[in-house]
Amino acid sequence: MEGTTSRTLDHPLVPGASSAIEKGPWHYGADYVTVYFDGDPARLSKLVPRPFRVADGRCIAYVCEIVSVGDSGREMVASDPDRTVYHEAAVGVRCFHHLRGGVYFPVMWVTTEWSLLRGLLNGYQKRLADKISLTKLHPLNPGLEPIAPGMKLGGFCVKGSQRTLSLRVTVTKAGIPSDLPTFGITFGRRVFPRTDESQGVVQEAVEILKSNSRTSDVWLGEGSVETTLPVGEPKAATGAVYRAGFTISGSRVLP
Amino acid sequence: MEGTTSRTLDHPLVPGASSAIEKGPWHYGADYVTVYFDGDPARLSKLVPRPFRVADGRCIAYVCEIVSVGDSGREMVASDPDRTVYHEAAVGVRCFHHLRGGVYFPVMWVTTEWSLLRGLLNGYQKRLADKISLTKLHPLNPGLEPIAPGMKLGGFCVKGSQRTLSLRVTVTKAGIPSDLPTFGITFGRRVFPRTDESQGVVQEAVEILKSNSRTSDVWLGEGSVETTLPVGEPKAATGAVYRAGFTISGSRVLP
Amino acid sequence: MEGTTSRTLDHPLVPGASSAIEKGPWHYGADYVTVYFDGDPARLSKLVPRPFRVADGRCIAYVCEIVSVGDSGREMVASDPDRTVYHEAAVGVRCFHHLRGGVYFPVMWVTTEWSLLRGLLNGYQKRLADKISLTKLHPLNPGLEPIAPGMKLGGFCVKGSQRTLSLRVTVTKAGIPSDLPTFGITFGRRVFPRTDESQGVVQEAVEILKSNSRTSDVWLGEGSVETTLPVGEPKAATGAVYRAGFTISGSRVLP
Amino acid sequence: MEGTTSRTLDHPLVPGASSAIEKGPWHYGADYVTVYFDGDPARLSKLVPRPFRVADGRCIAYVCEIVSVGDSGREMVASDPDRTVYHEAAVGVRCFHHLRGGVYFPVMWVTTEWSLLRGLLNGYQKRLADKISLTKLHPLNPGLEPIAPGMKLGGFCVKGSQRTLSLRVTVTKAGIPSDLPTFGITFGRRVFPRTDESQGVVQEAVEILKSNSRTSDVWLGEGSVETTLPVGEPKAATGAVYRAGFTISGSRVLP
Repeated sequence: MEGTTSRTLDHPLVPGASSAIEKGPWHYGADYVTVYFDGDPARLSKLVPRPFRVADGRCIAYVCEIVSVGDSGREMVASDPDRTVYHEAAVGVRCFHHLRGGVYFPVMWVTTEWSLLRGLLNGYQKRLADKISLTKLHPLNPGLEPIAPGMKLGGFCVKGSQRTLSLRVTVTKAGIPSDLPTFGITFGRRVFPRTDESQGVVQEAVEILKSNSRTSDVWLGEGSVETTLPVGEPKAATGAVYRAGFTISGSRVLP
Repeated sequence: MEGTTSRTLDHPLVPGASSAIEKGPWHYGADYVTVYFDGDPARLSKLVPRPFRVADGRCIAYVCEIVSVGDSGREMVASDPDRTVYHEAAVGVRCFHHLRGGVYFPVMWVTTEWSLLRGLLNGYQKRLADKISLTKLHPLNPGLEPIAPGMKLGGFCVKGSQRTLSLRVTVTKAGIPSDLPTFGITFGRRVFPRTDESQGVVQEAVEILKSNSRTSDVWLGEGSVETTLPVGEPKAATGAVYRAGFTISGSRVLP
Repeated sequence: MEGTTSRTLDHPLVPGASSAIEKGPWHYGADYVTVYFDGDPARLSKLVPRPFRVADGRCIAYVCEIVSVGDSGREMVASDPDRTVYHEAAVGVRCFHHLRGGVYFPVMWVTTEWSLLRGLLNGYQKRLADKISLTKLHPLNPGLEPIAPGMKLGGFCVKGSQRTLSLRVTVTKAGIPSDLPTFGITFGRRVFPRTDESQGVVQEAVEILKSNSRTSDVWLGEGSVETTLPVGEPKAATGAVYRAGFTISGSRVLP
Repeated sequence: MEGTTSRTLDHPLVPGASSAIEKGPWHYGADYVTVYFDGDPARLSKLVPRPFRVADGRCIAYVCEIVSVGDSGREMVASDPDRTVYHEAAVGVRCFHHLRGGVYFPVMWVTTEWSLLRGLLNGYQKRLADKISLTKLHPLNPGLEPIAPGMKLGGFCVKGSQRTLSLRVTVTKAGIPSDLPTFGITFGRRVFPRTDESQGVVQEAVEILKSNSRTSDVWLGEGSVETTLPVGEPKAATGAVYRAGFTISGSRVLP
């Protein structure tokens, strides 16, 4: 246990030196393979709980690799590198909360305990994947070219016996961050239900508190997506590849 | 997603067909390699939060394989067998809550998402292990003898770069269920903290609601234990091997 | 390394205390979920290399859990239990070598390094799976019944982004070992190719040397199978569940 | 199976579309955390088989992430990304073969089937690890600084219940590729032993055929290493961080 010097052992869900979750804010740097598409609003509405309303069917699906550290635990990249890298795959749906637009992720698959639990605490509908993999290039690999028009990239997520998400992008041109579709704020739900009537519960619609956003290395192209999520037949799919960074400090209960 | 026929997608923590947790009660059948030992009460007190008090230093450590099903999802042993088998390793400390004796597990490592989240919901301090392994015998293996005095069994748990728990038992004689030390009821904590002041919290000391307990195939012997948990030097270690079954319906908040 | 006391470090493929493979003979005890079916002989012939000839299209597919020890390393069930348990999934095709009948497995997926390399050494076409899972029952689980007519069992294998094999069996009656179809001896190929003209090669058709076979706990029933292997549409599928044990001492080159 | 369109299913070890190994040459791009140290020549000599002789005790230990493609399978970075990325950890010993200097790796741990089998085919003493992890930075992560003097990096390898290798590097200054110690050519052994007297064998001392080498992003510093390999007490350890690329076309039998 990392927490042998702390006065007491932290509960796994209470951010701390000996728990599963580092103290926030939490910083992220990620490499994305993304497909934007239109799903069937009627089907999507079954994936999006109240108080959120499906907007127009616009969706985002991505697979990414993330380097993440807690604000007070940056040295973990050296001491516990497996606590600072994970893979994530998700499908997000454009939604409204009253008049505010945003994105709600019915499910977000991740590959580590700490990203699973940290996400659940902040309001993401996280699940643990068995495998998430995506295209990775390396500038010194003699057999690989740098990213350029015509290059294909892809990624997938496997959970149990199912490939829950699979993406393909064929790059057609370089882009800039403002070329990427925006979805507004990120909605979520913090839920901790009871297993007995004596227990308390948490059930809150929240806005994820994101800051410090930056994006680079944008490439645009064609995209395709397959998912076991019932989103309807994906239409008007476009693809993108980019790097992004941001900070999450927690989440605020929506009024 | 299993939940394509449900009206909406369940939140990962809300027991249901498309969530990470089946609806309870939950039934368990397990094969254990266990070591009972005396730890250092002063050190143990740092592993046991209020309102629990360390009793006399008596501890239990085990590694086991568990077959588990939700009450309404027994067919998952065929359709989703990976959702019905997991491995678990834990260290428990004999404690009191007021005048009632029981066992509190400062940490319980498991190998699947659903056992992790189900346990957190019920009040176990669960963590996800990278690997848990224990002795398994097979009656038709021509190279193996049935369990008998002199046989050695063992198990271990690895998380990250650490072997967090390692057990060895040398069987000396057959036993009966009443030979096994008892610890009383099982204590726990249901905790879901906030990441922003606007959020609600759950923080409850609970008693796990266990029933239907049965034990068989008991063997007794010598034991040894190594753990990264700061329990002090383990003393008076004895070992046991057995099978057990039980049902957990949830957990009740302690008065 | 286990081999710190050996005079030199063994090569990973040379059976020994510090290699990936224990010294043989190797003993096995396994629990099977199996489906027998008829494939398309024309398609199967592309899965079966010379000198083997497809017989009549009869095939076997199974998923199993195996406890295995080397003859001189039985204590590893306690010291290194992860070196004694693995999962395996395979499809076998009834074949002839000259006039002798047997079974050839175009591919056999396993979950551990040592079963992968030991199998390749003996002539199995082994591949490493990402996950293999199958129905496991437990007599003390209060939510589970013992196996009986009407019970469904199943298993699957995942490699990369694909579910390469999936089986379902519905038990209809108890059986005896002689109820199970027999396939004769087990054929294989030991192959170690060159990556440069200066190198030697091994390319041998072999018979796996199996002995000590025993079978128990046989149940018969209906079966279904899905696989990414191009076997044609499976027909006349029947299912079986059983336990078996055997010893493999190596493999003999076929004349 | 990827090989459904090939005429026959490739043997797992025969490079081909449906085997575990892509056709070579194989191209590599890697990010390294490395420690150079002096081991005990007497102990090292037990890790280095004839015809190689330990030189002066100089050793290299590294942990890295590798992007690798076969010459004819570059599109797999998109279609099968899990077949193009792996992690590797190794300890190498400076050796002589007659008068030629080089490096021999008594063991090289990797995280995927294809890197394991490809390596064994070429003459590396590869083993499958359970987990290999190393420091990864991301330029857009708001909580991380670029690499600079004072930064700590690290990595580790876990196999079974053991942390077989653990490295720490504290960067002190930028460097250039020629600052890195050189070890000469890479020695290896291609070994495929028999399990029966009727079988053939391969047992060859080889030189790995490496070309296209390039290195960049070199940083130098202090290092420390812990390993379960019996190398003696590591002395005079220095550290380095760098990226490198190369091509391996196979291996040539040494005269």
